[in-house]
Amino acid sequence: MKKLNVAIIGASGYTGAELIRILLNHENVQIAALIANSNAGQKIEEIYPHFSHYSLPTLVKVDEVDFTQIDVAFCCLPHTTSQEVIKKLLEDKNLQHLKIIDLSADFRLENIEDYKKWYGHEHVAPSLQPQAVYGLSEIYRNKIKKSNLIACAGCYPTSSLLPLIPLLENNLIEVDNIIIDSKSGTSGAGRSLKTGNLFCEVNNSVKAYSIGKHRHMAEIEQELVKAAKSSFQIEFTPHLLPINRGIISTIYVDVKDKFTIEDVKNCLQTKYQDEYFVNVINGEPNISDVVGTNFCVISVNKGRAKNKIIIVSVIDNLCKGASGQAVQNMNIMFGFDERTGLEFAPIFP
Amino acid sequence: MKKLNVAIIGASGYTGAELIRILLNHENVQIAALIANSNAGQKIEEIYPHFSHYSLPTLVKVDEVDFTQIDVAFCCLPHTTSQEVIKKLLEDKNLQHLKIIDLSADFRLENIEDYKKWYGHEHVAPSLQPQAVYGLSEIYRNKIKKSNLIACAGCYPTSSLLPLIPLLENNLIEVDNIIIDSKSGTSGAGRSLKTGNLFCEVNNSVKAYSIGKHRHMAEIEQELVKAAKSSFQIEFTPHLLPINRGIISTIYVDVKDKFTIEDVKNCLQTKYQDEYFVNVINGEPNISDVVGTNFCVISVNKGRAKNKIIIVSVIDNLCKGASGQAVQNMNIMFGFDERTGLEFAPIFP
Amino acid sequence: MKKLNVAIIGASGYTGAELIRILLNHENVQIAALIANSNAGQKIEEIYPHFSHYSLPTLVKVDEVDFTQIDVAFCCLPHTTSQEVIKKLLEDKNLQHLKIIDLSADFRLENIEDYKKWYGHEHVAPSLQPQAVYGLSEIYRNKIKKSNLIACAGCYPTSSLLPLIPLLENNLIEVDNIIIDSKSGTSGAGRSLKTGNLFCEVNNSVKAYSIGKHRHMAEIEQELVKAAKSSFQIEFTPHLLPINRGIISTIYVDVKDKFTIEDVKNCLQTKYQDEYFVNVINGEPNISDVVGTNFCVISVNKGRAKNKIIIVSVIDNLCKGASGQAVQNMNIMFGFDERTGLEFAPIFP
Amino acid sequence: MKKLNVAIIGASGYTGAELIRILLNHENVQIAALIANSNAGQKIEEIYPHFSHYSLPTLVKVDEVDFTQIDVAFCCLPHTTSQEVIKKLLEDKNLQHLKIIDLSADFRLENIEDYKKWYGHEHVAPSLQPQAVYGLSEIYRNKIKKSNLIACAGCYPTSSLLPLIPLLENNLIEVDNIIIDSKSGTSGAGRSLKTGNLFCEVNNSVKAYSIGKHRHMAEIEQELVKAAKSSFQIEFTPHLLPINRGIISTIYVDVKDKFTIEDVKNCLQTKYQDEYFVNVINGEPNISDVVGTNFCVISVNKGRAKNKIIIVSVIDNLCKGASGQAVQNMNIMFGFDERTGLEFAPIFP
Repeated sequence: MKKLNVAIIGASGYTGAELIRILLNHENVQIAALIANSNAGQKIEEIYPHFSHYSLPTLVKVDEVDFTQIDVAFCCLPHTTSQEVIKKLLEDKNLQHLKIIDLSADFRLENIEDYKKWYGHEHVAPSLQPQAVYGLSEIYRNKIKKSNLIACAGCYPTSSLLPLIPLLENNLIEVDNIIIDSKSGTSGAGRSLKTGNLFCEVNNSVKAYSIGKHRHMAEIEQELVKAAKSSFQIEFTPHLLPINRGIISTIYVDVKDKFTIEDVKNCLQTKYQDEYFVNVINGEPNISDVVGTNFCVISVNKGRAKNKIIIVSVIDNLCKGASGQAVQNMNIMFGFDERTGLEFAPIFP
Repeated sequence: MKKLNVAIIGASGYTGAELIRILLNHENVQIAALIANSNAGQKIEEIYPHFSHYSLPTLVKVDEVDFTQIDVAFCCLPHTTSQEVIKKLLEDKNLQHLKIIDLSADFRLENIEDYKKWYGHEHVAPSLQPQAVYGLSEIYRNKIKKSNLIACAGCYPTSSLLPLIPLLENNLIEVDNIIIDSKSGTSGAGRSLKTGNLFCEVNNSVKAYSIGKHRHMAEIEQELVKAAKSSFQIEFTPHLLPINRGIISTIYVDVKDKFTIEDVKNCLQTKYQDEYFVNVINGEPNISDVVGTNFCVISVNKGRAKNKIIIVSVIDNLCKGASGQAVQNMNIMFGFDERTGLEFAPIFP
Repeated sequence: MKKLNVAIIGASGYTGAELIRILLNHENVQIAALIANSNAGQKIEEIYPHFSHYSLPTLVKVDEVDFTQIDVAFCCLPHTTSQEVIKKLLEDKNLQHLKIIDLSADFRLENIEDYKKWYGHEHVAPSLQPQAVYGLSEIYRNKIKKSNLIACAGCYPTSSLLPLIPLLENNLIEVDNIIIDSKSGTSGAGRSLKTGNLFCEVNNSVKAYSIGKHRHMAEIEQELVKAAKSSFQIEFTPHLLPINRGIISTIYVDVKDKFTIEDVKNCLQTKYQDEYFVNVINGEPNISDVVGTNFCVISVNKGRAKNKIIIVSVIDNLCKGASGQAVQNMNIMFGFDERTGLEFAPIFP
Repeated sequence: MKKLNVAIIGASGYTGAELIRILLNHENVQIAALIANSNAGQKIEEIYPHFSHYSLPTLVKVDEVDFTQIDVAFCCLPHTTSQEVIKKLLEDKNLQHLKIIDLSADFRLENIEDYKKWYGHEHVAPSLQPQAVYGLSEIYRNKIKKSNLIACAGCYPTSSLLPLIPLLENNLIEVDNIIIDSKSGTSGAGRSLKTGNLFCEVNNSVKAYSIGKHRHMAEIEQELVKAAKSSFQIEFTPHLLPINRGIISTIYVDVKDKFTIEDVKNCLQTKYQDEYFVNVINGEPNISDVVGTNFCVISVNKGRAKNKIIIVSVIDNLCKGASGQAVQNMNIMFGFDERTGLEFAPIFP
């Protein structure tokens, strides 16, 4: 079979590097272009020495790529920039064939006003928004299949929505008082040079940040509200962990009076029984159970108060929470087995 | 001034080591006896090489110590064992002068039945329980002053109770739906040999554990219920962090309709304005702000829902959450300046 | 093609877990038996929850396995135990077909006396020793092909021997004064319950250990002496690092007067130009360049003194230094492509 | 006693923060000025939230300080900048009283040409160089007492010179073939924004860097050559560790034929028997034995070859290797007990 030609736009960041790691393992694609405007001309192993074991294309500027030869482009740019680049590509008449999988937040919010409110800028490509599909693979598989613009879910949202959407769709839990306490490894902050991301600042410590106002609340609420078909707000607190990869979300919900914790477990087990990448377990999920993989592991636990349920969910933020999800979506879009390229066992210890 | 003679019972564990670190810095005491039954005969620097810089007593068995010469004993034993040893000491007629500061859970629960329920054993010294004072220094200072048996608060409870007790005493928040999501460094698990405490198991990961049933819930509820003068239950989820020291507790509460977040902040600021070791700040507390110190740093943040308040509290679990609190209580009991021996600035980076 | 039936003896340790990770990725084998005497009856996911994503055999005792159905057994037992088990298997007339790949130190030392001297016990299976082949794949490939008992090289030796053997074989460096300063992640210590392996003891620190007397010196010297065809001793100092995986060895050697650093580089580049798993680079190898992989990365650097060369070598101790090497040897023994099952890209960040 | 007025020039870096930590604990000084040109106007707790527990001066520019009121200035600036600022201060006729303790490399090299060669710039204050005293407290105490310009030793040099100088002064070891393999925590790289200092880059990895050419070689050689009274070169390889604080140096030397390892041990024990901050121990020094302290711990070990000695030395790079050494020097200069402000016990775990 002819391999797909893949371009990675924004290859010099951590999600770009993770895409390369996964795609090197994918039998149906070849990495045709690595794009990184500010590092154009460099070899990827100058940026990421761990790729010196491989033959990969030299980094180029986006304008240097002939996208007529590209089948699918992953876009790993910062928000706003992503809208600009994708707009240009998708409005090009010669690129009708091109499928775009965006890892930024730029096309996740269905309501254009929400984008402005949460990201502080006008949406640059509002006409494209309606065709974008939110890329939560297990939830939107059918829409993803038919779309040419996927807005992959954020890392925190992925860990929260996979357990919560089925429960709200089935009216098992109260919509009020959903509390998501999430903790993420530092790779979630990207490779940007900020004092707060220096080794000595992160090591030996944990902090909560963006308390009550993190942007990922917007897409979490959007998706939960759709699932519940009623309007409400959630609480979400992210924390920065001294690890490279992984998110653990501890989620507090109230089961409705007529239901029990067994109903909640059954709902999730039924929903995900045929999903390779989502496992509902008994026990205490550990971030190390999923590091390096595309798995999401979920457990449902009884709280102390009568109706309280405590759900714990773990993912690898760079994989299931970003690049792995993106490749899973590519597999869906092109009719590949969904596991192709993604069958890494967790690396432990 | 004659220095106090101090004994540390259970000196070979982490809280014992932390007591030594603090007391080496304390001008009013001398470490007269280090007790560790299973390591008796060894020098402390064989157990803890970082003490080879100091002259410290050789480890002995508890029976080898003449407690008539000891003014105050810190007890760092596992629960149940602690009750046995303390019972023997406090029932000795020749030791009427002896003050005991217990760091275990053995005398924290006022109701004897609660002890059995949460710890799975009969209380061995029920007759002593009534005289034990819960050692949360800022809350029970006056009782601590007069007592000869202090039951220091647990590490998680310390981080939770300091912000919550004043709010409940002042009826500012609802008693239902208090959710405490706590994350602790691994030193909280002590120096015991369990697979789950090995470096490779803890590093690069985080997990929730004892979900919905951790023993510290008992004392948290006991103290909150007393503060609120009404009965209720809380949610509490502990997590294990890949750091040595520090706890961050993220606490979700509902402010009562007639009050605002400003009332909550004012309440805590007023309560703690003269307390050296408790700081109420604006901003995002970081565990590294308190590592190595006896400080508790608290911030009060607006949640997304109208009445939701998110309180973040950080302490060093071995210091303010254990040995530092114990020394602060000793200072209270003997009329020393409360800061004596405890004025470490945080060690950062 | 019919898949090989593989047994892992000692599956509950870290090298056992790493073998499972690799073999799950290997198209030519199936894991037929997981053996762990003290955990027999348990599922592997009770020991290693990260394998709950997979269907794997239940742990059994070695006596429960019908080895006539096993093609190759990996032995991950502690030393001495390994000799006992392997002796029993290889002396069984019904198991003439069985190939054994031992990851312990039990068959690495050619001289039976050396084993006793360094390991403190009599060799239990001296009659098997002559048929054992030292499992350094790139060096002993031809012998490995024909053997049914492979003694995989130790982790530290692997990182040291790959750069040094070619230089000694080609008489480029002095045999005196070879100094190997190695640093290893904590997984090298295995999953055993020792205070020194606890998270809080390893984290935030580094120490040298077994200074001047580590057992791996025996096999390093054995192999270097064979390569140089002259007798000498080396210096080797291991250090414990607060990371899970990886070894970096910094090696100080004196190039012979008639040669230059370029000769040294050329020698290694020539030796390894067709070896997929050994890369000789310019630059500063980083442990993270190889974590999770079977690669060894080597760089050759000029020292300050005229003839001094500083070689830096990195491997993943659990993979190229243990289980990856073992699988590479299996591939050699059974005529598979040597890369099969081992083509993981490094996981970074 | 009237307290000294202290200024810290360059207070926003890690050595500045460590000076503040120490001086807050020093009974004879008050922090009169915190200088940080680019952060002038900010409070120190905006830069370092862990200082919000204290009342400290607002950050100012160097020009805003009236140095006639300052007794001693610590200079924590980058090299070259340090020369400029110190030149201006020491050439001011009104500041004859002022003592300066420089933590940069700017006045460490006695030979002006060496400075240019290793640091790539002309020395800006060559006329001051002759009066600068190299600040290795235990070695140059008498000169430090009388000087007004101290050039504190670098962190790597401190860990190497303390064990090596006495051995060379006493002619116990060969001057050829001294190999120093050092490993440092990341705080040694300062708080500068470089990709290589980001958490995800440093965590889980170790690398050697500046192999064969690190600038600290210059001062190490200068001091060793002076001690030995003969000219030679050393090998020195620094490594970056995933810890915040601490250096471990593993040093390989050849004892002269007529001496033994006991002579080496005796020499160091004799030299340092009355030095509070240098401990010569039997055993394996661990970085955690000294974290947060001004101690240097040294052990002397037999190598495998007949004359080879392996010395291991640990310090806290920010304390004994920088700010603690600086305060120790201040204590010497002003006749305080050398331990004042520096009696922290190690913080472990």
